[in-house]
Amino acid sequence: MKNQDKLTRLRHSAAHLLAHAVLELFPNTLLTIGPATQEGFFFDFLPEKNFTDDDLTAIEKRMHEISERDLPITHKHIPKNEARLLYKDNPFKLELIDQIPGDVVGIAQQGDFYDLCRGDHVQSTGQIKYFKLLHTSGSYWRGDKSKQALQRIKGTAFLTAKDVRTFEKRREEALKYDHRKLGKELDLFSFQDAGPGFPFFHPHGKKIINILTNYLRTLLEEAGYQEIATPIMLSDILWRQSGHYEHYKDNMYFSTIDDKSFAIRPMNCPGAILVYKNRPRSYRELPFRLAEFGLVHRYELSGVLHGLFRTRAFTIDDGHIFCTQDQIEQEVLNTIKMTYDVLNQFSFAHITVGLSTKPNNAMGSDELWQKAINALKNALEKADLSYTVYEGEGAFYGPKIEFLIEDSIGRSWQCSTIQLDFFLPENFDLSYVSSEGTKEQPVMIHRAIYGSLERFLGILIEHYKGRLPFWLAPIQIKVLKITDEQTTYAQDLLKTLRQHDIRVQIDTSSDPISGQIKTAQLQRIPWMLICGKKEAENKTVTIRYPDGKQEFGLTIEQILERALKESR
Amino acid sequence: MKNQDKLTRLRHSAAHLLAHAVLELFPNTLLTIGPATQEGFFFDFLPEKNFTDDDLTAIEKRMHEISERDLPITHKHIPKNEARLLYKDNPFKLELIDQIPGDVVGIAQQGDFYDLCRGDHVQSTGQIKYFKLLHTSGSYWRGDKSKQALQRIKGTAFLTAKDVRTFEKRREEALKYDHRKLGKELDLFSFQDAGPGFPFFHPHGKKIINILTNYLRTLLEEAGYQEIATPIMLSDILWRQSGHYEHYKDNMYFSTIDDKSFAIRPMNCPGAILVYKNRPRSYRELPFRLAEFGLVHRYELSGVLHGLFRTRAFTIDDGHIFCTQDQIEQEVLNTIKMTYDVLNQFSFAHITVGLSTKPNNAMGSDELWQKAINALKNALEKADLSYTVYEGEGAFYGPKIEFLIEDSIGRSWQCSTIQLDFFLPENFDLSYVSSEGTKEQPVMIHRAIYGSLERFLGILIEHYKGRLPFWLAPIQIKVLKITDEQTTYAQDLLKTLRQHDIRVQIDTSSDPISGQIKTAQLQRIPWMLICGKKEAENKTVTIRYPDGKQEFGLTIEQILERALKESR
Repeated sequence: MKNQDKLTRLRHSAAHLLAHAVLELFPNTLLTIGPATQEGFFFDFLPEKNFTDDDLTAIEKRMHEISERDLPITHKHIPKNEARLLYKDNPFKLELIDQIPGDVVGIAQQGDFYDLCRGDHVQSTGQIKYFKLLHTSGSYWRGDKSKQALQRIKGTAFLTAKDVRTFEKRREEALKYDHRKLGKELDLFSFQDAGPGFPFFHPHGKKIINILTNYLRTLLEEAGYQEIATPIMLSDILWRQSGHYEHYKDNMYFSTIDDKSFAIRPMNCPGAILVYKNRPRSYRELPFRLAEFGLVHRYELSGVLHGLFRTRAFTIDDGHIFCTQDQIEQEVLNTIKMTYDVLNQFSFAHITVGLSTKPNNAMGSDELWQKAINALKNALEKADLSYTVYEGEGAFYGPKIEFLIEDSIGRSWQCSTIQLDFFLPENFDLSYVSSEGTKEQPVMIHRAIYGSLERFLGILIEHYKGRLPFWLAPIQIKVLKITDEQTTYAQDLLKTLRQHDIRVQIDTSSDPISGQIKTAQLQRIPWMLICGKKEAENKTVTIRYPDGKQEFGLTIEQILERALKESR
Repeated sequence: MKNQDKLTRLRHSAAHLLAHAVLELFPNTLLTIGPATQEGFFFDFLPEKNFTDDDLTAIEKRMHEISERDLPITHKHIPKNEARLLYKDNPFKLELIDQIPGDVVGIAQQGDFYDLCRGDHVQSTGQIKYFKLLHTSGSYWRGDKSKQALQRIKGTAFLTAKDVRTFEKRREEALKYDHRKLGKELDLFSFQDAGPGFPFFHPHGKKIINILTNYLRTLLEEAGYQEIATPIMLSDILWRQSGHYEHYKDNMYFSTIDDKSFAIRPMNCPGAILVYKNRPRSYRELPFRLAEFGLVHRYELSGVLHGLFRTRAFTIDDGHIFCTQDQIEQEVLNTIKMTYDVLNQFSFAHITVGLSTKPNNAMGSDELWQKAINALKNALEKADLSYTVYEGEGAFYGPKIEFLIEDSIGRSWQCSTIQLDFFLPENFDLSYVSSEGTKEQPVMIHRAIYGSLERFLGILIEHYKGRLPFWLAPIQIKVLKITDEQTTYAQDLLKTLRQHDIRVQIDTSSDPISGQIKTAQLQRIPWMLICGKKEAENKTVTIRYPDGKQEFGLTIEQILERALKESR
């Protein structure tokens, strides 16, 4: 059995343990569901009154007690009628029972605790040793906000004590470098009551977004992309044609113009498609690569909003490539290279790659899928990448390559994707005239590198623990004067550096140098340039880094050269 | 009497002449209103059936006939009851009569034609000689689309035959260089059924928008602005506080999130205000200058949408300065200078300046207004500008400076404004801590230079007649090869120029050089670089301008130097 499977089984059992402890302490609580997740487990309850942090401590204590009892965990199937009797006072479980196919349902039992369950547990409660309850949050039955409000308790469990310690260390680091906390300290962004889930970028935050955008723009230009800008509101008719209305409307915002319904776009593809379709295209124009820094809006439950990681509005660095089937391999290879070029700028620990192939409900011929998957595999091999194949896990409209990056705290993030699409070209009747004069259908490749710029910024803040590298820092250099006698010298320095687009500021406070250093450190400024009497006389500066390291006697030319090199 | 007043009187009389002609030809038409406008006049009718272009020709002919009759135009006041009898079959006029204060209303008469009218006409129909009917369009009673749909006939009239000729010449030019036509020819942008009034920027159009944006960004940086980005959807509660909901809601789009109403922003100010308010501000931070390239959405009747000139979504180069009363003058002076710096890049014929002062319904003390107006006047005088004072024409919340630019076809456009605002700081309870530690209210200055980037682009396209100057052209240089033997040389050239961010393309068609030149001319490319055998041997190029002028034997260094100079 793989470790991941063992972990899932353990966490599933830990969810039962949690429910067991809750029922012993709060017998009138109704249980709903409690699955294992990627990071741990949760259980959604309908409690008599909401659990407090103190309750959480008590529940965790009781879980340890039940673990020590080392109760055997059994699983059996019982007739649905019997199960309905067991759950006559729990409408959630009754609903679940009705939806389970067949005449019987599974029941897991440990001591006098039982729960509706498909099975797959550890053998006894004693095997669940290494766990933590994390926090409570609001949720809804079936995740549907029109249904019963519930309370979720989240926790996690591990196979070894060491894993728990690693988890706790990471958790502490993550709390310490939480981008919401750092975002406030560094005055990068805020959230306001007037727009829950919609970030407000303050000057320094917007500066970083602009740096990320412009960096990518340069690469896009070199890679033959053409940038477009399309409307953020479009008619429902279009969203019905694209299939978004049918599959995604619960996550879309709508408005009305002249009595017709419009959606605020949740995705940018239809805009790119309309630009492609605006005039007939020839094979000579393919691959036709469109890029859009496209602002999208998607509904999220207020309970799951989480700083820049999960917002209701964000900007995708969207690329849409229209190409022939024969061009897929080269385009995907180029995209993989560009993805690595970008991600390598940020010193992530690892990048792992997955390839998702044809699912059961796929559209398009076997031949087309085979051709496309071969193209993706060839591209991955030419790029010399090892990758995991996720058989059958592609979207129904085409196979996909995903990149998982690991940050400095050891967490994994999925940002970049390359998604092939046979569906939209068909749906929008896209075509080009081939070299033989025939009308052919192009393939569409959707790809993003940052994914969401907002979320990527959040990841960078935590990954760098607030200390953005020189090229990304909103203020790269702070000039500190020992006394006001160096004011002119400091201003000359500022002027020279600014002429070369270095982002530099002078500390104009009347703080002593130690205070100025402290301020610059709190602001996570990459370089401090200290000007004293000697420096002004010799036309040099002392450079000081946030870790306290100093270099003396550098000339302005040396500083400038180094700054330009670090700025890329 | 000023010429403008004479013109208004003439155009008002021409509107009567139009209505007179319409009633003679289509006696069952109901008249509504018909005012003089900045450019001419219009009259809104409820006709039995819609007027055609042929009808327009006939109506114009009849207007000339009535003019030749030289009927005296009289004006008298009659009791309202008598007027109601006169208009018993016209519900529009009855509504107007009810709304006129007092017991009598004015009636203008010429021959057997009469119309409800405040007065101010030429003396006889013979004095209305130089006029043109322009076109018909849909309109609504009171401009309210929930009310009766009407048909508007637009026309214009002038004091002299020469003025009509100038007008017609300009009109021809404007038609020839219509940005909608050029935008399509140059593949800059499109409008699509899926988003009426929402522009789709194609690669070359988006490129120009980016150039305009980045150019301004550089100036903003130098001028001490800090760029922010705030949400485009915000809660109604905020729009009620800002007053937009009450005054502007008919032009706003709404959506719903978690059963609460949100508006798609029609203006960017509240976002900037929330950033200001995010933490306490000190006098040391003032003037606090925020810039946002803010996308706004405003409802417009579909009948008035007009290419990029009038859209339902556009981007304002918005600036919001929070400052003390004493800082107004310097900030306004800086803003005036920056406005001229920007506008002077585009070789407009004239810029005229207007200052609108305190209206009757103003908020804020006389003292504050006087101080603010003095500051604006001082700034204008320090900038050495002559200006017209529009007494009492300011908004209720503060005085305003407007700039009117005249384009190459002689039309005037209002793009840049500097608006003082005492209202929003009061409404949002904005404050800063003064040097004495007291809590004070800042003044807010709203200012835009381009106004709407989309509209400004439309103006530029027409102003330059499609031939954008080198620094603005999406493709600056096209490299043309006489034969394929020069391919390597052309590619070297391309590479060198691109390294310096020059936007250059090679013509890869198999067209003869004459055909390549024609294509580049149609694309309005500022420079063609022609590479023949001799040029490749000597490592030189021939530069050819769209007007056919050529220069021979330039080295690549010379080209590059000139290109960088022209790029600014």
